[in-house]
Amino acid sequence: MTVSYSIDVSKSSLITFINLQLRWRGSIWKSVLLEVLMFCLAFFSLSIVYNHHLSDETKKFWDDLSALFDSKMDYIPLTFMLGFFVTIIVNRWNEIFNNVGWIDPCALVMSSYLRGSDDKSRIARRNAIRYLVLTQVLVFRNISMQVRKRFPSLETIVASGIMTEEERISYEECSLKQIYPKYFLPIQWTFSILYEARSGGKIGADLQLNEIMKCVLDFRKGLAQLCNFDWVPIPLVYPQVVFLAVRSYFFLALIARQSILIDGAPPNPNHPIFPLVPFIMTVLQFIFYVGWMKVAESLMNPLGEDDDDFECNFLIDRNLQLGLAIVDETYNALPYQQKDAFWD
Amino acid sequence: MTVSYSIDVSKSSLITFINLQLRWRGSIWKSVLLEVLMFCLAFFSLSIVYNHHLSDETKKFWDDLSALFDSKMDYIPLTFMLGFFVTIIVNRWNEIFNNVGWIDPCALVMSSYLRGSDDKSRIARRNAIRYLVLTQVLVFRNISMQVRKRFPSLETIVASGIMTEEERISYEECSLKQIYPKYFLPIQWTFSILYEARSGGKIGADLQLNEIMKCVLDFRKGLAQLCNFDWVPIPLVYPQVVFLAVRSYFFLALIARQSILIDGAPPNPNHPIFPLVPFIMTVLQFIFYVGWMKVAESLMNPLGEDDDDFECNFLIDRNLQLGLAIVDETYNALPYQQKDAFWD
Amino acid sequence: MTVSYSIDVSKSSLITFINLQLRWRGSIWKSVLLEVLMFCLAFFSLSIVYNHHLSDETKKFWDDLSALFDSKMDYIPLTFMLGFFVTIIVNRWNEIFNNVGWIDPCALVMSSYLRGSDDKSRIARRNAIRYLVLTQVLVFRNISMQVRKRFPSLETIVASGIMTEEERISYEECSLKQIYPKYFLPIQWTFSILYEARSGGKIGADLQLNEIMKCVLDFRKGLAQLCNFDWVPIPLVYPQVVFLAVRSYFFLALIARQSILIDGAPPNPNHPIFPLVPFIMTVLQFIFYVGWMKVAESLMNPLGEDDDDFECNFLIDRNLQLGLAIVDETYNALPYQQKDAFWD
Amino acid sequence: MTVSYSIDVSKSSLITFINLQLRWRGSIWKSVLLEVLMFCLAFFSLSIVYNHHLSDETKKFWDDLSALFDSKMDYIPLTFMLGFFVTIIVNRWNEIFNNVGWIDPCALVMSSYLRGSDDKSRIARRNAIRYLVLTQVLVFRNISMQVRKRFPSLETIVASGIMTEEERISYEECSLKQIYPKYFLPIQWTFSILYEARSGGKIGADLQLNEIMKCVLDFRKGLAQLCNFDWVPIPLVYPQVVFLAVRSYFFLALIARQSILIDGAPPNPNHPIFPLVPFIMTVLQFIFYVGWMKVAESLMNPLGEDDDDFECNFLIDRNLQLGLAIVDETYNALPYQQKDAFWD
Amino acid sequence: MTVSYSIDVSKSSLITFINLQLRWRGSIWKSVLLEVLMFCLAFFSLSIVYNHHLSDETKKFWDDLSALFDSKMDYIPLTFMLGFFVTIIVNRWNEIFNNVGWIDPCALVMSSYLRGSDDKSRIARRNAIRYLVLTQVLVFRNISMQVRKRFPSLETIVASGIMTEEERISYEECSLKQIYPKYFLPIQWTFSILYEARSGGKIGADLQLNEIMKCVLDFRKGLAQLCNFDWVPIPLVYPQVVFLAVRSYFFLALIARQSILIDGAPPNPNHPIFPLVPFIMTVLQFIFYVGWMKVAESLMNPLGEDDDDFECNFLIDRNLQLGLAIVDETYNALPYQQKDAFWD
Repeated sequence: MTVSYSIDVSKSSLITFINLQLRWRGSIWKSVLLEVLMFCLAFFSLSIVYNHHLSDETKKFWDDLSALFDSKMDYIPLTFMLGFFVTIIVNRWNEIFNNVGWIDPCALVMSSYLRGSDDKSRIARRNAIRYLVLTQVLVFRNISMQVRKRFPSLETIVASGIMTEEERISYEECSLKQIYPKYFLPIQWTFSILYEARSGGKIGADLQLNEIMKCVLDFRKGLAQLCNFDWVPIPLVYPQVVFLAVRSYFFLALIARQSILIDGAPPNPNHPIFPLVPFIMTVLQFIFYVGWMKVAESLMNPLGEDDDDFECNFLIDRNLQLGLAIVDETYNALPYQQKDAFWD
Repeated sequence: MTVSYSIDVSKSSLITFINLQLRWRGSIWKSVLLEVLMFCLAFFSLSIVYNHHLSDETKKFWDDLSALFDSKMDYIPLTFMLGFFVTIIVNRWNEIFNNVGWIDPCALVMSSYLRGSDDKSRIARRNAIRYLVLTQVLVFRNISMQVRKRFPSLETIVASGIMTEEERISYEECSLKQIYPKYFLPIQWTFSILYEARSGGKIGADLQLNEIMKCVLDFRKGLAQLCNFDWVPIPLVYPQVVFLAVRSYFFLALIARQSILIDGAPPNPNHPIFPLVPFIMTVLQFIFYVGWMKVAESLMNPLGEDDDDFECNFLIDRNLQLGLAIVDETYNALPYQQKDAFWD
Repeated sequence: MTVSYSIDVSKSSLITFINLQLRWRGSIWKSVLLEVLMFCLAFFSLSIVYNHHLSDETKKFWDDLSALFDSKMDYIPLTFMLGFFVTIIVNRWNEIFNNVGWIDPCALVMSSYLRGSDDKSRIARRNAIRYLVLTQVLVFRNISMQVRKRFPSLETIVASGIMTEEERISYEECSLKQIYPKYFLPIQWTFSILYEARSGGKIGADLQLNEIMKCVLDFRKGLAQLCNFDWVPIPLVYPQVVFLAVRSYFFLALIARQSILIDGAPPNPNHPIFPLVPFIMTVLQFIFYVGWMKVAESLMNPLGEDDDDFECNFLIDRNLQLGLAIVDETYNALPYQQKDAFWD
Repeated sequence: MTVSYSIDVSKSSLITFINLQLRWRGSIWKSVLLEVLMFCLAFFSLSIVYNHHLSDETKKFWDDLSALFDSKMDYIPLTFMLGFFVTIIVNRWNEIFNNVGWIDPCALVMSSYLRGSDDKSRIARRNAIRYLVLTQVLVFRNISMQVRKRFPSLETIVASGIMTEEERISYEECSLKQIYPKYFLPIQWTFSILYEARSGGKIGADLQLNEIMKCVLDFRKGLAQLCNFDWVPIPLVYPQVVFLAVRSYFFLALIARQSILIDGAPPNPNHPIFPLVPFIMTVLQFIFYVGWMKVAESLMNPLGEDDDDFECNFLIDRNLQLGLAIVDETYNALPYQQKDAFWD
Repeated sequence: MTVSYSIDVSKSSLITFINLQLRWRGSIWKSVLLEVLMFCLAFFSLSIVYNHHLSDETKKFWDDLSALFDSKMDYIPLTFMLGFFVTIIVNRWNEIFNNVGWIDPCALVMSSYLRGSDDKSRIARRNAIRYLVLTQVLVFRNISMQVRKRFPSLETIVASGIMTEEERISYEECSLKQIYPKYFLPIQWTFSILYEARSGGKIGADLQLNEIMKCVLDFRKGLAQLCNFDWVPIPLVYPQVVFLAVRSYFFLALIARQSILIDGAPPNPNHPIFPLVPFIMTVLQFIFYVGWMKVAESLMNPLGEDDDDFECNFLIDRNLQLGLAIVDETYNALPYQQKDAFWD
């Protein structure tokens, strides 16, 4: 389910900040907590060995090793890799979001141009809408784990009522090779319905038929775009290199951040609180970088199962209910027309 | 209310700069003042304890601690996080702004194509416009706190004259499940009005009907986009991680910026003015970073209640007044046509 | 007036570079000269006091203070703030530029579809064009200081011939509340002219009427976009924080860049040329950063009065002259049609 | 073949990370492995000479040389060059991807508007589709090495059935100069088929003919865009400078990263593990930077032969099969229309 | 001439890298060679004076001066200025490239909708195409030095056959003021041809006339966009400040990079190879930064005369030849229609 927090940021203030941080679902805390704990555990274990179980000589060796690592840590260009990568991912996420497919314009235009209250007209309108939703289901099954789980087979779609048994048979009869998707078929059916409605005079003009077809093609185009994004993701090398950089940075930080030196010398007199400083700062750094990386990870597959991924199943139900309501229940409904309150 | 300052930046000069800085509404000063004061207070309190109430030994300890923190402060990647984040937020803000919904094209086309000066034609035009504004009100109620406060219920909309009692009943009668919004209904009504006007010959051609419908669908699409942006915000993790980074940076700065060392040693002879230097610089840094963050905070929900958020209520009133003026008051108005001043 | 320099950059070479630097109008030199001089003056004054009028002890104090400031100067994140801010401003400037309004497509389509060489047809075409230019004038008056100065009142527009006295009266008679702009009115008039021309058979088909109306709506949309950009600028906080950061950086540089230390010690033997080094470098830095900032300042209001702002008045005159020439002078002009030189 | 990994990133977690890293095809490991090995080999060879075969004096010389190089390594601005360059390349790659050419909309519209089940109608529809695929083949032959290898000559296209012998002769008869591509010819043929179908009444209205032509022009436009991208690549200087910077950086790193100094002095006592630290860090740096560069290299020619380049041959086959299935096999297919499961 | 290198980057590998670097036309080597040599010469001259002709005392002075300059070099923010600037320039270059004007869609639509094989129809089609190319020539003459050189006057256009003598006279007779361009005139002529063809029944429907006009307007829009880009370039300050920053950086580097100090002291014992290190690194830095700057310089005026600028003259010839071939030579050509190889 998407995580909405607009209400929390209605006013920009310190309260806003606190409210924002206190959320759990889809939050940074939920996504990094486990890894932060693991990191702390590993850091402490090493720290205890280092501080309590090493002879002074070995300690000197580890101090030097740690300092050496620390001085080379900035070879790994975390910040910019993450910054540029997240920007690219966000752009792609935006495009996916814009193509996710809303039935409303199709339904509104169909309701206006495909006329008639008899059963045949109603069936035409309802089935056209249903076929569009069916296309969406078929596409989403292939790209969204949520929908795949809900509709593991064509039979389950039939069971849900989005497809009839006859349609399933037609669909499977189409002899196109397995590797090519048959998503076009329900769109084809919609067009056949529309063409028949035009022939039968239910649609009054070629222009009107054409307008409905354009809306349907727009709907189809969005879904096709989703398939394409799924077919050609950001080249694998890019996320690999970015995520690997982040993780290996913090793996090395386990060693590199163990010793505390101020201008190359340990603080004098020493105090048990000093080793906490690099630890605290490294944990903060871990939270910020890994949190930032999580943004990229969760946006990379926005139709997945993270907390803030798109709710594909909700969208399908909404499109079906709303589409049917528009083309059938509220068809031709118009409240009594009268002069409005501002009439001179 | 939006804060316009174009006039102040008409010419690029030093005066421009000063004029720009002297504004209060929607300014950096207004937005960071409180937090700057809190930061100064905390900094000073710590500073007084540190400078006057510590023994030399404890002071040495704090000096070391402070220096240690200071040397690790750049683990927190403020600049880039803010830079990339603000860029993404600004893009989104731009898109929201472009979809906020202006009635003008709908009204102009309707006024040209839906002809007739009799009451029935006027009612048709006026109600079609009113229904569009009604859609805007219904949508804005859900995404803008300002509009929600003005129209807490459908009854208040009826009271304002944007909806009639009959329409409210129709609207509530629609049996669609609660979770699906019924924003489509007034659009449906508009289409019914238009279809009837075409049947009655008030609209002269299918092409003209289609053109009006396209304008209405464009208007609707903008509003739908606003709903979508509200439904799927930037993933929560991103603002959380950025805002947290900024705040924790300055929280740690309270400790890290207390001691003054030049190349690791205190300036000699010491002077009460020296501790002021890191303080001044840290306060400046606070103003710039927190100010930058405020840009992001205030842009994240541009329909909220900050000084420079969009004035949704103004937009609704404007759309209603202007729409009615275009389709009714100035319908068919044309000044006397004569040869212009440049006629050969 | 815009500053064109394409010819100077036709070939990429050292000459290109020098030609580019030698320009004055709209150049970096013109825009930063005054401020550079002020900065140098302030720097020198401080430098003289510092080098000649201070006792050794006070000097030591200032050296330390200066060094302390210098070591904290990078708290101010100039580079990225400017980089990201300028990118955002440039995007906005591009959009404004794309919406500035060119009459050509409207005039060409009108000239093709609104036929007739009699006075009435010519008046229709000429007035339709004139109304579009009038809309542009009315909009530009509110957003561009240049145009406001040229047309301080509706009377001055009438005097220029872009509006007739009758039209001015019609315009002012429209009873819409003061706060809502009446820019739509001349568009409404244009549509009325077009509708009458269609009724009178001067426009041959609904499709042709519709095509002209689309062009007019496109023209209107650009101008509306300009109004919107004026109504909702980039939130004030953003330019404030960026410009303040730049200026305060260089204000502090006056102190921070006074002393010269190599690895913490003054060069030995000292030489009067050494203090010049930080001075030269700081002045260069001043030129680059303030120059960069000037890019942002001058792009922020591209309809203002800077050297390279859009020439709104030129655009208005051009649109009027060119529009009239297209729809009237060269109406139906076609050179003698013959076989071309490449005819087999 | 494109490399799809969406399924691996369905949930953001540590497992996701590991799954992502364990892939081989199209992975960072495959693309940098060879070069990493070469780099290690070179580094070790130098290291062995340096540590075992040098006199102390020569060693001191190499230490100084190495340190001197190391201190200047940041003259080479790797991070930003790569970051900005990759962003630009990704944008271009996106545009190429969006224009790669899908037959579906053309086929669906043609199937709806070009009616008739007789042989002549079927031939018209099938050939129109075939000509579009033929255009795609002709264009891809010039810009994609994969397709060039599959179709080295027009004869091979004829052999595949996408072109008939008569068509090949027509194509070669066109007397246009060699340097201008004749891709337009099959489009021209398609338009002729459509025009004849309209004349023969198979297409019912001008509007319908026009709609099909628009779809075909859209398809053509995408392919033309691909040609343009091929004709005008990102200026050569940009990839040259970026790739050279990366390679020369690591070439110099072979020398610069040989000695280990902590604060300018070798760690005391020395230990054979110390020289490993800069080696490990440099190899990591090599993997990240060269991996990042590989992203750019593989995206620069997305129609090439890298693992994650677009599968042009698959696309051609898919378009042909799917196009024919839509316009012929499933023409006019519509399952039995009945009341749906949600009928009140 | 554009420089194509797609074939070299078909596969991402080390060979790719070497092939890419070995090119000369349009390469980094060609564009920076001269300046690198000048830089080396200046550096060496200074180096010789410094190393051989200075007393030890003067040398100490120069060492200090050089070190002082070196420590301040990072005041000049090269990397980000270049990165952000190049990104902006690349976006603009892309837009220019997208608007450069291809005749194909106009010609294809014209060939389909403007029917007839008699001389009069052929003249109509051929002249319409010729007028579009003429518009392109007229526009390009003003914005591209290449085309200006080829067509220094209207007479040379007449001589080339793109314009007839009668058309030139018509063009010059148009009494529009000199400062307004008359590019619209050939478009106007095209529209007149089309209107007459519609009146004469050569174009079968209003919709078809309208479709051709839309294509022509699109072609015109691209060219108008080019004029606008020429009229309003990126504000002069921006390239000035960026290019000046790069050049002054390397001018100062001549001094700043003369001395070699490791941790503030010269290496001991000295060796003639040491001074080469900063020299090599500075030359590399010069190549990368100046090369990057060259990207910006050559993209800033893509219609100029650099190696990789668009070939405007080629485009004009191609448009003319291809346009005429489409509307005349291959008009109505359609190979014998038969069943295809995949017919069931």
